[in-house]
This record gives sequence, structure tokens and C-alpha cells, in this order.
Amino acid sequence: MDTRLGFIGLGIMGAPMAWRLMDARYTLAVHSRTKSKASRLIARGARFLDTPAAVAAESNVVFICVTDTRDVEAVVRGDDGIAASARRGLIVVDHSTISPTVTRQLADELAKQGAHFIDAPVSGGDVGARNGTLSIMAGGDPTAFEKVEPILRILGNTITYCGPSGTGQLTKLVNQILVSVTNLAVCEALTFAKQNGLNLEKTIAALSAGAAGSWQLANLGPRMIAGDFRPGFTISLQQKDLKLILQSACESNISLPAASLAHQLFTAAQAAGHGKDGTQALFTVVEKLASLH
Amino acid sequence: MDTRLGFIGLGIMGAPMAWRLMDARYTLAVHSRTKSKASRLIARGARFLDTPAAVAAESNVVFICVTDTRDVEAVVRGDDGIAASARRGLIVVDHSTISPTVTRQLADELAKQGAHFIDAPVSGGDVGARNGTLSIMAGGDPTAFEKVEPILRILGNTITYCGPSGTGQLTKLVNQILVSVTNLAVCEALTFAKQNGLNLEKTIAALSAGAAGSWQLANLGPRMIAGDFRPGFTISLQQKDLKLILQSACESNISLPAASLAHQLFTAAQAAGHGKDGTQALFTVVEKLASLH
Repeated sequence: MDTRLGFIGLGIMGAPMAWRLMDARYTLAVHSRTKSKASRLIARGARFLDTPAAVAAESNVVFICVTDTRDVEAVVRGDDGIAASARRGLIVVDHSTISPTVTRQLADELAKQGAHFIDAPVSGGDVGARNGTLSIMAGGDPTAFEKVEPILRILGNTITYCGPSGTGQLTKLVNQILVSVTNLAVCEALTFAKQNGLNLEKTIAALSAGAAGSWQLANLGPRMIAGDFRPGFTISLQQKDLKLILQSACESNISLPAASLAHQLFTAAQAAGHGKDGTQALFTVVEKLASLH
Repeated sequence: MDTRLGFIGLGIMGAPMAWRLMDARYTLAVHSRTKSKASRLIARGARFLDTPAAVAAESNVVFICVTDTRDVEAVVRGDDGIAASARRGLIVVDHSTISPTVTRQLADELAKQGAHFIDAPVSGGDVGARNGTLSIMAGGDPTAFEKVEPILRILGNTITYCGPSGTGQLTKLVNQILVSVTNLAVCEALTFAKQNGLNLEKTIAALSAGAAGSWQLANLGPRMIAGDFRPGFTISLQQKDLKLILQSACESNISLPAASLAHQLFTAAQAAGHGKDGTQALFTVVEKLASLH
């Protein structure tokens, strides 16, 4: 097909993803609440349009990459939203991490207009977005997914079709349970080690290759030790995702005591001013709690 | 030196470790509370002696591999214990996972007789013991450690000298905090996934290579899904180690909320009859808790 792409949301993730699509010689219509975020893409030939509806009207496939559930709702359902110009065959791919429940509602609504809504949240951070090494977890109509899969392979190197609408979001939330509780494991372990006077570099080296090993230990452990809290992924965003997890779990009567504990300790980290720091700054809270005496 | 080795404690870990020392052509004096556990080693030429004191009297280096703090205390301090025949130059290497505090006491006591006590707990399970691929975390006198290090390399492939007496045990406890809380992360993540109807094999495959990845996810996750609770490491032993962690943390006024939570949930697993199952059986408790409705 003559594939015309749209991209809505040009933040820290969206901008480099749109850039990669232009690398692959796609023509792009773009929209962002803050037009200045589109300037590099515009300079390269992308057309800036004033509304999501206008982007959808000109595109076969529209990508969304915004922050929260209500942002996606505004882009799709709002005045001049995608739904205002959606038509048979349009495929909307949402790379935001949002509510699985709202995702299913949006997919149902667009389906009435003959359009498809694919949830496709990503992990891998801005580095992964720049390098095309994101993991993408997709849910929705399988035929629509197959149509966009070749484009997703420009953006990521691990593309998983998870099942019906919402399962991409649910899989991303599973990822975030693992990430946040494993992070907490590393914080407590290094706190215990530090309070007992162990050499922390040596401890991480001794334990990383065995049953205690994790991405979080190998990647965030050294930054915790060094007090390097520059964000790969911020605590505020981690909290946004933990809220989605606990809200989704609550809707299904699922008890998640460890994820809840992580959420509470991240709240303390936000209260201490670490919201814009990387998730490894959770270490400061666990360490303080462990040594209030 | 003409190195005569002794080995005390011939259980699931000790027996294959002693076997490897015989593979390396060391002559071995052995002791075990249950003599039958020594039969294969005796058939191969090891000398069985009736007391730890007798083993120590005939050896330059004595290895201990028993279960708990009080077992090591009995082997060292008890009637006919190692201390009864310890002499200048004797090196005792304790592979058990026990209290760091008691470890330092035993090291101090033996030091008065001119003997060294090296704490050298291991991880890697019975498979690692058989294959010589254990991780060994050692603490104690550095000169004594250097003397035994070549022998430790027969038993393990990651040998870390952690520092003074007790630091080997502390490092092992750091390992066990990581292992138990990361295990809990996997249990909650897979419970959330299962309750939401996700394909669990696909979920693990999609997430293992990224920031959510861990040894626990890759190795225990598939067994949780399959309901395969055969032990690599039993819940009873994990609980023994979590008690050591929380006791040691309490002695130092260190608060460890996530490790405490893991301990409580493992207690529920023991109550449900899973004490002799592998630690992956924690999944059954987290899953039941999440779906009591």
C-alpha cells in the first residue's frame, strides 16, 4: 500500500521514533501539543498539522506516543481527535503506556468506524528509541498488527504480538512489576551490604553471574553505589506505571503486596525530591529507612 | 605443603564437594553424623573418623559443610569438636551459610589456638557442587585465604575474597536478599499475567532480554508456569537464610521491608506444605493470595 504515516506526540520517546521512520524514507505528518518539539522533524521534511484529526485524515497509519491514559483519550476522543476523522482501514498504533481497560474501550469505539487501535507500548528508553532497539508489546486485531509489523521492526528489535486489545498494555505492566520489584531487591541488598561495610563493587561483581543476577543489579547497582541518579527512566514515570498496575490489579481483585510496597517507597522518593531522577534513586530511600537510627 | 584435607558434613552439597577433592587426588579424612553418607567416599579411599576433633588432628585444612549455625558451633566447639584438637596453622574453611556474628566469634576463638577460620559460603546448588562451578564468598585472614584459594578453585569458578571474618557470610546474605525478593517479583508479575489471561511463555520470552530480566525469571519462571516445584534450592533452606538476614539486619538496626515480606510469604508456603519444594513454589502462595475471591 501507499503508506502515509502520522505521528502524534514528539517527546523524549516519540521524537526519535518519528526520526527513525523518516530514516526509513517514510513521509510523515506530525502533531505535538508543543510545536517546537517538531522543529527538527519539520526541517527534515515532516508536515506539521494542527490537530490529531488532520493527521489521521492524511494517514493510513497513525502512531501515538504520549504520556498518560488521559493524553491518549484526548488524542483519540477529544475535539479534533483522531476519531473525528477516522475511517475504514485506518490503523492507530499507541506506543504510550496506559490503562488496558481504556485501551479496550478506545479499540471498541474506533472499530465502530472501521478503524483499528493497536496497543503497542515499548520498553528500552530513549536510547532504544534512537537505535531502533525497543521492545514492543502489541495487542489488538491480528490482521491490523500484521500490516504494521514491518514498520514496528524499524522501531524495535523485539516485537511481540501478545493477543487481543489490551494485552500489549498488560504485558508492559508485567514488565513494570518485574522492573520495580527487582529494583527494590537491589536497593535492599546493597543497603544491607553497605551498612555492613562490604565493598559494594566487589559484592556486585561476585553476585551478578549467579541466581541473584538481574538487569537491574548489573545496570542500576553501579549507579546506586556511585550516587549517579541521572534518569534512564524517571521515578515519576515508574510511579505512573505502578499506579496503572495497582489500578488494573484492583479492578481484577488481584493482590500485589510487593509491587504495592515498591509504589509506597517510590512515593517517599518523590516526596524527597527524586521524581525526576532515575529509578535507581530509590536506593536513597531504602538506605535512609535502613539507617534512621 | 603436604596438604592433608578433612571434610565434615557429607550432605547434598558436602558429598559432591568432597568427591571433587578426591578427583584432584587429595587424600581425605571425613566425618558425618550419619556414617552411611560417607560410604561412596570410603569405597574410594577416604578415611572415616568418628569425631571432628579426630579429623582436625589429621588435617592441615578442614572443610565444613553443614546446615545451620548451631551445627557449625557443634562441629567446632562441641565435645570432640575441631577446637579440641586445633593447633597453630590449622585452617578451617566453613562452606555452610550461618550467622556472620557467630562466624566472627568462632574465628576469634580458634585464633587463640593459632588456627584460622575462613567463612566461605557457596551458591550454585548441588549441580554446581558436582561440576565445580560454585560461587564461593570468603572472609577471614587474607594469608590463610591465599593458602586455601587453590583448593577452593577445585570447588568453584567464582572465588571472591570479601574481607575480614564474617564478610563471606554477609555477602552470601546479600545474595539471598537478591534471590528471594527477585523471586517474589517474578511470582507477582506472572500472577498478574496469568490472572489477566496472558500467554505466560510468550510473556517471559518478550520480557527476559530487557530491563525486567533476571536469572530468577529465566530459570524459575518456566518452572512456575509448568507447576514444576522440584527443588534446586528448597523453601526451608531459603527461610533459614532469610532468618539469618533478618536477624543480622535487626542486630544492626537495618530495616528490610521487601525481604521481610518475602519471608512472610515463604512462611505461608511452608504452612501450605511446600517447605521441601523449590523456591519457585512461592508462586502458588502469591497466586492464591491474588485470587482468593
